[in-house]
Amino acid sequence: MLKECWENVQKRTPLVHNITNYVTVNDVANVLLACGGSPIMSDEPEDVEDITSICGGLNINIGTLNKRTIGAMFLAGKRANELGHPVLLDPVGTGASKLRTETADHLVREVRFSVIRGNISEIKTIANGSGTTRGVDADVADAVTEETLPRAVTFAKELAKRLDTVIAITGAIDIVADAKTAYVIRNGRPEMGRITGTGCQLSGLATAYVTANPEQPLEAVATAVTLMGVAGEIGFERMQEGDGNSTYRNRIIDAIYNMDGDTLEARAKIEKV
Amino acid sequence: MLKECWENVQKRTPLVHNITNYVTVNDVANVLLACGGSPIMSDEPEDVEDITSICGGLNINIGTLNKRTIGAMFLAGKRANELGHPVLLDPVGTGASKLRTETADHLVREVRFSVIRGNISEIKTIANGSGTTRGVDADVADAVTEETLPRAVTFAKELAKRLDTVIAITGAIDIVADAKTAYVIRNGRPEMGRITGTGCQLSGLATAYVTANPEQPLEAVATAVTLMGVAGEIGFERMQEGDGNSTYRNRIIDAIYNMDGDTLEARAKIEKV
Amino acid sequence: MLKECWENVQKRTPLVHNITNYVTVNDVANVLLACGGSPIMSDEPEDVEDITSICGGLNINIGTLNKRTIGAMFLAGKRANELGHPVLLDPVGTGASKLRTETADHLVREVRFSVIRGNISEIKTIANGSGTTRGVDADVADAVTEETLPRAVTFAKELAKRLDTVIAITGAIDIVADAKTAYVIRNGRPEMGRITGTGCQLSGLATAYVTANPEQPLEAVATAVTLMGVAGEIGFERMQEGDGNSTYRNRIIDAIYNMDGDTLEARAKIEKV
Repeated sequence: MLKECWENVQKRTPLVHNITNYVTVNDVANVLLACGGSPIMSDEPEDVEDITSICGGLNINIGTLNKRTIGAMFLAGKRANELGHPVLLDPVGTGASKLRTETADHLVREVRFSVIRGNISEIKTIANGSGTTRGVDADVADAVTEETLPRAVTFAKELAKRLDTVIAITGAIDIVADAKTAYVIRNGRPEMGRITGTGCQLSGLATAYVTANPEQPLEAVATAVTLMGVAGEIGFERMQEGDGNSTYRNRIIDAIYNMDGDTLEARAKIEKV
Repeated sequence: MLKECWENVQKRTPLVHNITNYVTVNDVANVLLACGGSPIMSDEPEDVEDITSICGGLNINIGTLNKRTIGAMFLAGKRANELGHPVLLDPVGTGASKLRTETADHLVREVRFSVIRGNISEIKTIANGSGTTRGVDADVADAVTEETLPRAVTFAKELAKRLDTVIAITGAIDIVADAKTAYVIRNGRPEMGRITGTGCQLSGLATAYVTANPEQPLEAVATAVTLMGVAGEIGFERMQEGDGNSTYRNRIIDAIYNMDGDTLEARAKIEKV
Repeated sequence: MLKECWENVQKRTPLVHNITNYVTVNDVANVLLACGGSPIMSDEPEDVEDITSICGGLNINIGTLNKRTIGAMFLAGKRANELGHPVLLDPVGTGASKLRTETADHLVREVRFSVIRGNISEIKTIANGSGTTRGVDADVADAVTEETLPRAVTFAKELAKRLDTVIAITGAIDIVADAKTAYVIRNGRPEMGRITGTGCQLSGLATAYVTANPEQPLEAVATAVTLMGVAGEIGFERMQEGDGNSTYRNRIIDAIYNMDGDTLEARAKIEKV
């Protein structure tokens, strides 16, 4: 599955339209190029319907939303739905402000998402409109641990069923679920949390993967999550004395660039539950 | 003092709300993570009051201001004042355009800033509405040198007293002053000026430091300025043949990531005047 | 010619106003600093006329255009024209959407450009309002190859004559032409296409070069294109095992930072046609 999904991205060069935040947008673009995809960014309401029409998938990230770009998210999302393109939502910071919470809620109600990816707090806010978010990081009380994993998997499956989507909850342990099946992934490094935008990068990756693997969205997202984690491990192994989070960022993207399907399979710590 | 301020950032993980320019925003986020803080970016008027409320400090940088984000700066600044959060102003390019000069002036009049950090031209414009700015770099005629240092220190203290804030003037020689005391810092490398955004990064750092050290804002800012300079030196020592400003950028952020309080104390070239 | 143009940039430190996309803006700023220029970014209509007035040249890039920044492009472009500053247009994605195509067309009609730089699809769209663009990359059917080169050179010269500008078509083989003369440049590496924004960076570079070499805009742009290609080669030679597109990005900017006129001359693969 991992190798097949990886190869489809190489073969199909998915063109991904991103409406994303200006903090991490450059890394998202380089990650999409690194993985074998191709990025285009556009967030002007008068532009996004045309742009999304020439793409294969759409990545919506509300990290630095504003009134203008929110309008663009709805227009692009609906057009992508009409065209049958996969659409991913990264509800950055939902729960942290009224505008973010409401925007994410309205998007989920008005646009059909193939994937929703966030940390546990963000996904809980998507589920119930409550939950607590400390900035853009998951609330520690809500962290997915080995102990809370079974409950989190059930929660992810139920939410996936209710919203008819793939739910990806990422953190120390990652969960990717549809209504019936979940994958639990234990790749990655805690130091990835000291780099801005690894979550945003993963959302870009996951959009490329579902775009190139339309027949198996669950597996596509699980592969993207595994790829990001494996790249985080390989990047970390290449760290030298004195290197820190800025160099680590480069090394992770480099590792995605140099990945091959066999390495991905060999290093994956993924189980179906 | 340096070690204590550094340790407080490690212990308290200050969450900093940034309304900053889109040129250097990624580096600001990574510097905040590198130093032990946590960044969140939001510049939509309807979003910023909620976001700043969950943070501990606010960093306002007018580098790529627009009509929408200017509104957000005032709203966030006033809310942060109500909540007693420290607020920093980085008046990028004030003096270079009417809009920048007026925006910085109005901000200083309507928002209570804990810190104002800029190059000498920008700070002079803050002080007297005149001064010359060549783009975003300090006018050479205005540079702080060993010869002009005593005058610049007096100027900084007087401005700090008038505006009831900490003034940080950064350049070849850095000055951090409140009404009574000034620190002069001689760390750093001239090559840092060939990287975009080292000033913006320092403003992010300084906001994290005042947020984690509310009882000693002057010392907090002086520590952040010293930290940036020491990181610039360590990063430069790690440069290899063929490396240039892009790699140097990464190495400086890496050096902040790997800093410890003892190294900071040992390498500091700081004096109280 | 190459060395002379390079030296003029070192001597004159051209200050370049950029209205550019938020995806690659940080790299554009660092490239401008690397090459010996100085960047300032501003895209607010009320700000851009003042800012462009204190600069020497203007770089307009429509990569993430919106209604506000489009207004800024026209205001800044016209003011720069009044002041006799060189203005460059990078029509990113023209042909990919109605808004981009119309904006680029109107800009070309209302602003006098010293340089228009794009891939072959974008330049064809500038020429005839048709052409196909797959996202922001040149349509493969339109690629400039050794076989199609003579036709492409004629096309570039004719368009340069009609629009009274320098046309730069970049890709595997680069063409820089005015009405009478064209340079064909064969430096660079195909892997540069796996980095986001090498085109945007080149547009920044080219603006710095025409600003510092106002008496020879054709040669200035040809030098900038050659410089980017040579830097791409040097950066690639410095790649180590495990490095990928993110590190390659840094190494190219570093190579521009460390370039000298003799190296540029020695490595140039440029011919006049």
